[in-house]
Amino acid sequence: MNEFDISQTRFLKDINYPVDLRKLNLMDLRGLADEVREYLIDTISKIGGHLGASLGVCELTLALHYVFNTPEDKIVWDVGHQGYIHKILTGRKEALKKIRQKDGISGFLKRSESEYDVFGAGHASTSISAALGIATARDFLKKNYKVIAVIGDGSMTGGMAYEAMNNIGLLKKDIIVVLNDNKMSIAPNVWSIQNYFNDLMTNDTYNKFRSKVWELTEVLDKKHSDRLRRVAARIEGGLKGVITPGMLFESLGFRYFGPVNGHNVVNLVKTFEELSKMSGPLLLHIITEKGKGPSYAESHPQKIHALNPFDKSTGIEFKKPSLPTFTKIFGEALVELAKEDNKIVAVNAAMPDGTGLNYMQKEIPDRYFDVGIAEQHAVTFCAGLATEGFTPVAAIYSTFLQRAFDQIIHDSALQKLPVVFVLDRGGLVGADGATHHGVFDLTYLRLVPGMVIMSPKDESELRDMLFTATRYKRGPIALRYPRGNVFGVELGKMKQIEIGKSETLKTGNDIAVLAVGNMVHNARTAANLLESEGISAEIVNARFVKPLDREMLFDILGRFSKIITVEDNTIVGGFGSAVSEFAVQHGYKNDILIHGVPDRFIDHGKPEELHKDLRLDAEGIFSIAKEFISKKILHA
Amino acid sequence: MNEFDISQTRFLKDINYPVDLRKLNLMDLRGLADEVREYLIDTISKIGGHLGASLGVCELTLALHYVFNTPEDKIVWDVGHQGYIHKILTGRKEALKKIRQKDGISGFLKRSESEYDVFGAGHASTSISAALGIATARDFLKKNYKVIAVIGDGSMTGGMAYEAMNNIGLLKKDIIVVLNDNKMSIAPNVWSIQNYFNDLMTNDTYNKFRSKVWELTEVLDKKHSDRLRRVAARIEGGLKGVITPGMLFESLGFRYFGPVNGHNVVNLVKTFEELSKMSGPLLLHIITEKGKGPSYAESHPQKIHALNPFDKSTGIEFKKPSLPTFTKIFGEALVELAKEDNKIVAVNAAMPDGTGLNYMQKEIPDRYFDVGIAEQHAVTFCAGLATEGFTPVAAIYSTFLQRAFDQIIHDSALQKLPVVFVLDRGGLVGADGATHHGVFDLTYLRLVPGMVIMSPKDESELRDMLFTATRYKRGPIALRYPRGNVFGVELGKMKQIEIGKSETLKTGNDIAVLAVGNMVHNARTAANLLESEGISAEIVNARFVKPLDREMLFDILGRFSKIITVEDNTIVGGFGSAVSEFAVQHGYKNDILIHGVPDRFIDHGKPEELHKDLRLDAEGIFSIAKEFISKKILHA
Repeated sequence: MNEFDISQTRFLKDINYPVDLRKLNLMDLRGLADEVREYLIDTISKIGGHLGASLGVCELTLALHYVFNTPEDKIVWDVGHQGYIHKILTGRKEALKKIRQKDGISGFLKRSESEYDVFGAGHASTSISAALGIATARDFLKKNYKVIAVIGDGSMTGGMAYEAMNNIGLLKKDIIVVLNDNKMSIAPNVWSIQNYFNDLMTNDTYNKFRSKVWELTEVLDKKHSDRLRRVAARIEGGLKGVITPGMLFESLGFRYFGPVNGHNVVNLVKTFEELSKMSGPLLLHIITEKGKGPSYAESHPQKIHALNPFDKSTGIEFKKPSLPTFTKIFGEALVELAKEDNKIVAVNAAMPDGTGLNYMQKEIPDRYFDVGIAEQHAVTFCAGLATEGFTPVAAIYSTFLQRAFDQIIHDSALQKLPVVFVLDRGGLVGADGATHHGVFDLTYLRLVPGMVIMSPKDESELRDMLFTATRYKRGPIALRYPRGNVFGVELGKMKQIEIGKSETLKTGNDIAVLAVGNMVHNARTAANLLESEGISAEIVNARFVKPLDREMLFDILGRFSKIITVEDNTIVGGFGSAVSEFAVQHGYKNDILIHGVPDRFIDHGKPEELHKDLRLDAEGIFSIAKEFISKKILHA
Repeated sequence: MNEFDISQTRFLKDINYPVDLRKLNLMDLRGLADEVREYLIDTISKIGGHLGASLGVCELTLALHYVFNTPEDKIVWDVGHQGYIHKILTGRKEALKKIRQKDGISGFLKRSESEYDVFGAGHASTSISAALGIATARDFLKKNYKVIAVIGDGSMTGGMAYEAMNNIGLLKKDIIVVLNDNKMSIAPNVWSIQNYFNDLMTNDTYNKFRSKVWELTEVLDKKHSDRLRRVAARIEGGLKGVITPGMLFESLGFRYFGPVNGHNVVNLVKTFEELSKMSGPLLLHIITEKGKGPSYAESHPQKIHALNPFDKSTGIEFKKPSLPTFTKIFGEALVELAKEDNKIVAVNAAMPDGTGLNYMQKEIPDRYFDVGIAEQHAVTFCAGLATEGFTPVAAIYSTFLQRAFDQIIHDSALQKLPVVFVLDRGGLVGADGATHHGVFDLTYLRLVPGMVIMSPKDESELRDMLFTATRYKRGPIALRYPRGNVFGVELGKMKQIEIGKSETLKTGNDIAVLAVGNMVHNARTAANLLESEGISAEIVNARFVKPLDREMLFDILGRFSKIITVEDNTIVGGFGSAVSEFAVQHGYKNDILIHGVPDRFIDHGKPEELHKDLRLDAEGIFSIAKEFISKKILHA
């Protein structure tokens, strides 16, 4: 394929803001859609990024900005990774070339980035709630702007979306919810109601009937129009003879429209023009194809959820990493354990590939559960399984498990039900940025009474910890590891690790470094650097953030005047805090330096860039240790 | 009314376990229901407790234990405060007399209390998830027991319930969900779908038609029965001419039955007998009256949600406390502020009375929102309001705000949207016990970058802090105070408090006590006790847990060798931890004693009893200070 040259485009070259878009003839939007899609593929093929979701909403995005008067009208996108085309159309066409890179624009919507980014979103199912807040404010202010929430079918499995729809149904606010139904979102088949969608596509007679009825209801008073709507809903039902997708939304107080083809931009524009004249809670159901455009994307839409740079003619990623990821090691180890123990059950929230549970899904499908983007339910479902003697393994990204914080406390820990929490993407995750960093988990898990928290130094220890976790029956136990590739150490037979027992990797005399998880490697390298300058550092792999290794701590606090703790987690309330609580409460007077992620939100960038910036790489730990020893600093 | 004498009852005297119940004739259940209700009212009138919810499920509870073979069949109750009659029927008839009291049985279900308590629940909307876990385990084990989840209409507004129903619809497990619809749960009118229920009650013709259709579908193969079910659903719809309550559940893959009268025990028994022969996900919708029985309860059902001891002939509580609660002070102060600032909007999750927002609801109803038991949505709805310049006040109990932990981080803090979080029931709450103690909030809020956390020493400071919070525009700000009565201090005009500024209440020389919120009063009293023994304690009201008052800390750490921090929060990662992090990172070598709630779950009991046990009362702080000074202890 040739290089894409934007100056050679017919339309896109002149489009910088929605106001430019609105100058086009309606029919030209088709040509623009092709150009935008080509530009997006060309750009993302070079730098990588979430491609599929944005390809799927190409026509939708054009139609929304064409019809609605953004930014005065407010479009609230659910999970911003579908927002690339929105960014292209709202002043960030050039900036797309540095999306998700350090100091470049975010891969998600971000309020501080653009007035068109009405509400930031990296986690799913928030858009309808935010839209209701905005619409409520609008009505207080007696303004007239439109509020549109765009939500995928995957996000519709999240309970928050239901909570919000229920609330809108009660408040009867003027809001348009666009359900972007690509029948898979991140992974397919997690939404029960889709069982009923399969036979339904645009039907002209049916839709004409609908629109007539809705037009009529517009001129009737509230009481009669409600009644007519209900009767109409019944008649429509009779027309189709099946339970319609609209039933869910209509029962919650929405007027339902659709399903319509989400790739017919002309029809979408006409539909939005109609909807913009109506009042009350409206739901437009559109059918799209994730990855619409390139044939490789349409046939493997899951593959292009998040992608490295790739060949745009084939979709094949340029460089495959030579080492597997922690995710893969976990996924395979779990299968190995589950084959020997039929009580092990794997549960995830719409992320089989991301969490590594795709291995379970393939090898032992009957003990694999994808519950949808529903972390709360996932955890309590696991707790239910545990009551009957099963060993549920909840594999949920660190950042997404925040959604189930209450369920961890209330349904697992309080009842001492042994759920194994596997937190991938612990620590700084890189390009996904502030919404996705897993830098709070050591703190939010540590406050839970009875919780065990482990973090492995490498992939071999990950396997041992998973082995240990699946045999632990006294309550919840969490295993946390970073995004990315493993070190390439040898993998032995999995073995038990004593709960609460650390591992001393190197003895020393001048300073002790207590490191957690992925920071152990960096601390060890730092120790070598220190050694070359004549400083002897003792390196401890903490292994457990809870319970602490008291014996080790008494020993270390007794032998070293200076101690550094290192963790890829906020310094607030995490491992370093635990060590300092311990030291203080036992009357130790050592100098302790708590090193970790500072108490602020961290933007996107490669993990190694971020670690370097925050002095969490080996060089950073080395220099901090030197400064600490020379009393130049007391905290990082 | 006379004293109730259980030995004079016809049926109840011989009922200790469900097996006794099952010996009765079906028609005798009516008489038993009356006796049980009378026993429950008599007992709770003396000791207080959640009465209304259990009165509403009297016949349901009898019918369930009569038809199903508990404990082999599993009844999962959503929010255990509807479980009093369940407890009476499952070996705890006598124990009811000490319910919610220290060393007595819990006011909620508790696995460790009885094998009939299948799953503990104090927070809403968990039952369907737990039931699905149990049913999934059952099928793996190839067992045949029935799994029944009982959930109220209020809990149905929680997104978790929807997540679980969606998942059941996909997995098609054999589960019976009983929707106990009393049209109010805790507060009325939070469930949109109830708009459609109002005209619908049991209709014989309609129900006969339904049951015929379902019988028929039982004998057809899967494909045809699905089709027939759908057609039948349409015809039924036509019969009634309205959107039926069943539509929501049917669209999620459930077979819907009802609505039926939940107080006709004979009919309930027959219905459950029918349902127990069917397979797949079934939902039975019953209509009950909360507080069914006493006339005062039926007419004021909200009043008897949780109750002090009362006169059983009138429902009037015996002793009204002479002082108002913190809740009331907050509620009234908010109205005062909102009258002067029309950007203040109040949001709660189905707890208007509990949170004190009933004052807003009454005085400024258009800026009052009850979103249902939907804490996640509540917080993001607030964030949406904040984007448009409003000052949303989210009033949610400390323990329930755990449900919105992710939304606090992701939708408010990260976007620096100024939401005011008002956490009532911070600290140990008393009789509600482990599921309701608000002892994690200082930690889970402290880890959030940019969060401001305040806790007032008394009601006057609460007002000043609320004033301060509603004027703070830089991001989220939280205000946390305890359950219970205020001190009776004089209330002045509300004034601004400087963010991050503590208050020294008493200077001293020998030891410094830094106390948070409700612990300030106890610390001050302890200082008087210490004074009488010649020990001079400095008492600081921390006011802010975040940001810390650095100036004060430098001063205190410089002047005192011994410092005690006191908080009604877990000692893990809370205020004491923050102070010790600060001391450690600035190289201070003071003796610091972190005093607070230990790192374990705390059972129910009166707050003053629990504080005494944990040495958080004045006497406890006094004695701990003495031991600390004499070096007897380094931690509490």
